[in-house]
Amino acid sequence: MIKGVFTSKEKVIQHDQGNIFHVIKKESNGYSDFGEAYISAIKYQSVKAWKMHNEMTLNLFVIIGKVKFVICDDKDKENIFDTFILSSKENFRLTIPPKLWVGFRGETEGESLILNIADIPHSDDELMRKNKKDINFNWG
Amino acid sequence: MIKGVFTSKEKVIQHDQGNIFHVIKKESNGYSDFGEAYISAIKYQSVKAWKMHNEMTLNLFVIIGKVKFVICDDKDKENIFDTFILSSKENFRLTIPPKLWVGFRGETEGESLILNIADIPHSDDELMRKNKKDINFNWG
Repeated sequence: MIKGVFTSKEKVIQHDQGNIFHVIKKESNGYSDFGEAYISAIKYQSVKAWKMHNEMTLNLFVIIGKVKFVICDDKDKENIFDTFILSSKENFRLTIPPKLWVGFRGETEGESLILNIADIPHSDDELMRKNKKDINFNWG
Repeated sequence: MIKGVFTSKEKVIQHDQGNIFHVIKKESNGYSDFGEAYISAIKYQSVKAWKMHNEMTLNLFVIIGKVKFVICDDKDKENIFDTFILSSKENFRLTIPPKLWVGFRGETEGESLILNIADIPHSDDELMRKNKKDINFNWG
């Protein structure tokens, strides 16, 4: 397990006219500050990889569909990987601290949607990118 | 127009593997603080009405589907209404300050999903409720 990476099960409140899905509160484990909320779509079997944020902590929540997240820690001699599959049916949030490589793939037909509640606004100044092939991982 | 209620058009970044949808940043017009993020589902032609928050400012964003929002200001002799239809295709955010009655209806088949980025965590202590019929509005 990579330090600081974890999932949190969030409540679903049943309601006849449509349920309510908790995502994150200011007192939640993993919340530090608010910078920006944005939504990323990912097509079925498409991969977005790799990005490393030098400052941003991500709080990721799959709103629609199912997504495989791969996290790579390259600070030691050998890369360490953690993988998580989040589905909108299970209402988990994934917290990822900075200085880790992150990639993800859409795991259901159509588009999956991922909400990120980030502690700082998006900025290219704190973001590093690698091509998918530049980190050796078997996406299956 | 009811004072303090407005919509903001947010950017959509095109991407081959799936687009990115801006929702709100800490410097956005309408943002004051972060308390909680949660998602409400609303079924087709179902109505959730009415709630008044005494303290919470809502920032509402339709992630999936189409939703009609009705806002009622009852502070003067006669009720004043504002209505907004938000669709996931148009990427608008709706800001609603406290002390207004809010109701909404699902306008597309299946369930619509609404994200609320709220400036305080949800609490029944600051929330008032009325039945749908207690405010005279023609939902059509």
